[in-house]
Amino acid sequence: MSKIWTNSGDSHFLEPDDLWEARLPKRLAELTPKSEKDPDGEYETVRFDGQTFRRKLPTSAAVKFVEDSRKAEGIRDARLRLGDLDAEGVWGEVIFPSLGMWSSSFRTPELLRACMRASNEWALEEIVAVSDRYVVTAQVSTLQVEDAVSELEWAAAQGFQAVSLPTRPHKSAPDWNTADWDPLWQAAERASMVLAIHSGTDPIDLTSASPNIAYRGPGGAVMNYTETTFSGQRAAMKLVAGGALDRHPGLKVLISENGATWIPFLGDRMREGYRQHHMAVRPKLTRDPKDILMTQVYASFQHDESAVAAYEAMGYRNVMFGSDYPHMEGTFGHTQDTLKELFDGVSDETRRRITRGVFEELFPRVPPAPEDTAPEAPAFEDRS
Amino acid sequence: MSKIWTNSGDSHFLEPDDLWEARLPKRLAELTPKSEKDPDGEYETVRFDGQTFRRKLPTSAAVKFVEDSRKAEGIRDARLRLGDLDAEGVWGEVIFPSLGMWSSSFRTPELLRACMRASNEWALEEIVAVSDRYVVTAQVSTLQVEDAVSELEWAAAQGFQAVSLPTRPHKSAPDWNTADWDPLWQAAERASMVLAIHSGTDPIDLTSASPNIAYRGPGGAVMNYTETTFSGQRAAMKLVAGGALDRHPGLKVLISENGATWIPFLGDRMREGYRQHHMAVRPKLTRDPKDILMTQVYASFQHDESAVAAYEAMGYRNVMFGSDYPHMEGTFGHTQDTLKELFDGVSDETRRRITRGVFEELFPRVPPAPEDTAPEAPAFEDRS
Repeated sequence: MSKIWTNSGDSHFLEPDDLWEARLPKRLAELTPKSEKDPDGEYETVRFDGQTFRRKLPTSAAVKFVEDSRKAEGIRDARLRLGDLDAEGVWGEVIFPSLGMWSSSFRTPELLRACMRASNEWALEEIVAVSDRYVVTAQVSTLQVEDAVSELEWAAAQGFQAVSLPTRPHKSAPDWNTADWDPLWQAAERASMVLAIHSGTDPIDLTSASPNIAYRGPGGAVMNYTETTFSGQRAAMKLVAGGALDRHPGLKVLISENGATWIPFLGDRMREGYRQHHMAVRPKLTRDPKDILMTQVYASFQHDESAVAAYEAMGYRNVMFGSDYPHMEGTFGHTQDTLKELFDGVSDETRRRITRGVFEELFPRVPPAPEDTAPEAPAFEDRS
Repeated sequence: MSKIWTNSGDSHFLEPDDLWEARLPKRLAELTPKSEKDPDGEYETVRFDGQTFRRKLPTSAAVKFVEDSRKAEGIRDARLRLGDLDAEGVWGEVIFPSLGMWSSSFRTPELLRACMRASNEWALEEIVAVSDRYVVTAQVSTLQVEDAVSELEWAAAQGFQAVSLPTRPHKSAPDWNTADWDPLWQAAERASMVLAIHSGTDPIDLTSASPNIAYRGPGGAVMNYTETTFSGQRAAMKLVAGGALDRHPGLKVLISENGATWIPFLGDRMREGYRQHHMAVRPKLTRDPKDILMTQVYASFQHDESAVAAYEAMGYRNVMFGSDYPHMEGTFGHTQDTLKELFDGVSDETRRRITRGVFEELFPRVPPAPEDTAPEAPAFEDRS
């Protein structure tokens, strides 16, 4: 059997529920999220950072949906995980932890700082230490710029190669297009830390039983998944239009689980707006906004057949495969089938760029993936 | 000089401000929008359909921005317009009237019906009667499904070939993904009326001085223009995921001024969601959601270089040029330059499909555009 080896620009890990509580000093540990379910299983009372709210518990269908995405033991165990990766043909991985979903709802800067640090220390011990194939994204507070900067610098010193940022910063902080974040961009550029932004990470309303559900009714499941790409696109748009990437040409952004073909598309649209509305455009950029997007923003996709054409026919070089391990939207269980479909009839150069070249460019410290295995010789020679 | 002739999937007309007031019976005319500016020019009082509200007047920069988009006399005069079109090399046009921006804020079904009818009668007399190159989109109420159906049927009988729909229906009506709209889809399919949806037409908050401005601060102008594509994408997504296009395979949707490359991209994302989240997907579709999007949804773009590659390399056949005449985002004044850039080195087959073939497929009653003019012979033979 032939095997295509790939790196992944998008993978997931699940921390223990009590990570923060176990690692924070008692005074702060008491403020971390706690839930008490009603005896009838309909509602829960959540206490978190001085806030108390009641919320409906998710339906059994919603619970099963989440559990199905967490079935693989490798989501909790970095050693077992390697077996899954080898079987799938996935080598290096950009790994996003899961507890970050609470980040947008903290109120106390000190508490959020402590939780982010605890998450990062835990990741170093439990994931990074296991294999140099794992590129875990460091978690930082986005409640205050200076907290993000200091955690990023600490994380870079510990060997982290990427920092995870949400598609929008904390609700009470200025947005990504403002110059307020320049100290963070400067620190990331200096430390060669990739900004890793995962789709669907806009701040959420924790008081809702299903904070990520924008649509109900016919087509809802497809629409809710499709919708998540827009917040990822907006994050890139803000970093380009606000000038952050222009002022920091060494900064690299990875937008994960967001598809790839939107990059040349959004580049054309931003260029059109920039040129046709020039009288209203501030700041002026020193480079074309599409060129900035196409060169400094990287994209990871799973199944999209158009992603290969975005590379070959639209000049977008920064397309990277991502397995989304072990989530349902991803390729776990069928990675080799997906890779073979994607690259059937495609040149070696294209395949190598998308499966390994882009990842190696972003994360040069990860050892190279094994060479692909050629298909076995046919059982008998075809003499036709 | 060589000349490339093109049709346009996206053009604009400006009705007289008093169209509704002049054509409606007095009882209803009194309810149409009326504004009274404060003497100091800071605020206005708007009375409209029983609602009265104060709103800040737009800044002089915003007023100038709008005026710059309306400078060409052809936006108000369908005879003068032909001169501009001939000079630009634009033949047939899908034309969107402008008064529709009020539609999402009506409350009285009878009033909205009367205004839509007045707009349509006016368009027949003032635009359609002038040239068979003009495909004016009929306006319909989206406050009540049955009103939309009856106006669409009336409009089809008058010779309209397309109906204009906003990216979302009226705030108090169900959304496009619901089966409530099936009678409208059925009527449109039966009458071969194209559903023409222009980007940026989500319901607006009329009490705001700048209802279309989502972003302020650095990059705001570029971001506000870029953002408008998402509502157009959502409209197509809802029509596919909710099953409308699957149940009505003869229905054709044109999304205008929204770019084109998003179609293969969104198709990949919807297919991924549909397949990977199959356990949660309702309704099941009889065809692949990407195939539905790629075949029944048409897209018009202005400057996007990636649109040509979407046709050639991503199998998306329904890409159409649009001039957006005479708006600033469009190509008025440089249409020939844009066409020559877009199609430099591109095959005749591709150029003809994008400039005329797709439009002819949607609007077979428009006479064909003149043949392109070849470049003049060089002044002397090149003997090198």
